[in-house]
Amino acid sequence: MSRSISESTIRRLSHYLRALESLAATNGETVSSEELAARGNTTAAQVRKDLSHFGSFGKRGLGYNVEELRRRLREILGLDRPWRVALVGAGRIGSALYAYPDFKRRGFECVAVFDADPAKIGAQWGDTTIRDVAELEDVVRREGVDLVILAVPAEAAQELADRAVHAGARGILNFAPVRLRVPPHVAVEDVNLVMELEALSFHITRSGSNGA
Amino acid sequence: MSRSISESTIRRLSHYLRALESLAATNGETVSSEELAARGNTTAAQVRKDLSHFGSFGKRGLGYNVEELRRRLREILGLDRPWRVALVGAGRIGSALYAYPDFKRRGFECVAVFDADPAKIGAQWGDTTIRDVAELEDVVRREGVDLVILAVPAEAAQELADRAVHAGARGILNFAPVRLRVPPHVAVEDVNLVMELEALSFHITRSGSNGA
Repeated sequence: MSRSISESTIRRLSHYLRALESLAATNGETVSSEELAARGNTTAAQVRKDLSHFGSFGKRGLGYNVEELRRRLREILGLDRPWRVALVGAGRIGSALYAYPDFKRRGFECVAVFDADPAKIGAQWGDTTIRDVAELEDVVRREGVDLVILAVPAEAAQELADRAVHAGARGILNFAPVRLRVPPHVAVEDVNLVMELEALSFHITRSGSNGA
Repeated sequence: MSRSISESTIRRLSHYLRALESLAATNGETVSSEELAARGNTTAAQVRKDLSHFGSFGKRGLGYNVEELRRRLREILGLDRPWRVALVGAGRIGSALYAYPDFKRRGFECVAVFDADPAKIGAQWGDTTIRDVAELEDVVRREGVDLVILAVPAEAAQELADRAVHAGARGILNFAPVRLRVPPHVAVEDVNLVMELEALSFHITRSGSNGA
């Protein structure tokens, strides 16, 4: 699972891609590692190091060709194909995610939404009918779902992950506050908003009274 | 800003704390690094290494005292005090965050909600009246806001971050897809949901066709 590439490197690749897209829209055939660094809030050395994991880009003194680097970054990130996504959990977080305009723009298409609550099953979200989570395996198989977003309570998450993986899902974006156990071929990214606040609390506490 | 402690270590500390809390609720006066590792989806060696950053815990062969380690982890994470939080952006993501029960339980109290949309300003969310974002500085100062959650469009984020920091905020949880520039005493954690999906896409693409 690409363990040699750190999660922070992957996030920076996404930032570089966004920088290249905005450059491509404006002008510029080439871009320097300094320019990419400024837009990614990092250093030119870090840009060169991040890209060096994936081969040789750019020419010394000439910078990177914007179009070529953009195309390569899209390939590296796996964005040169569409991804079929199922959302499990039609609560508040789920509905915020469903409405997120950037998902579709980036090639992540939500092909199904599930919930366990009879009051929600059958309701319409835009073109999408909320389905009974009992149909999860069938729909994942039939629709060729690649990625599952789990926006469900902690106690339901592992079982739903197991079922989605068994039906063929290969990636899980997990909002439940629990560490999922999955086979090695399955990727998991956790989003735990309380832990993000705890990380802020940690940093502020450690930086002590010399701040603001 | 505690640069020597990695972000993944901080996340694991949060996981250990949760494990200790559930242990404290059930039984057990002591816990081994193996038990903590199992609950944090990591190794016993990693647990010992993570904790060693913060002093000496536990006795060889006896494990850790659950209550004492829990208290110390709360101190290390800065959770032995309440945090005053302002939410900027009363859209879908904002409303999902506002309703998140774990925030308050963990000591993160949302003392103000802001928006720029006249149709939203003045509306009630529970006990909270949505305020005009023009009042941001005043309220951050008057209410002693420590942390700001930015759930706003990319183009508004930097200016709002600058204003919140100027008024005394020391931490920002940023949902806008932009890298914020802040002074060194201010902590930022980014949550970018598209980038999380891109990380899944990256891992699945790199693991190739030997998966599912």
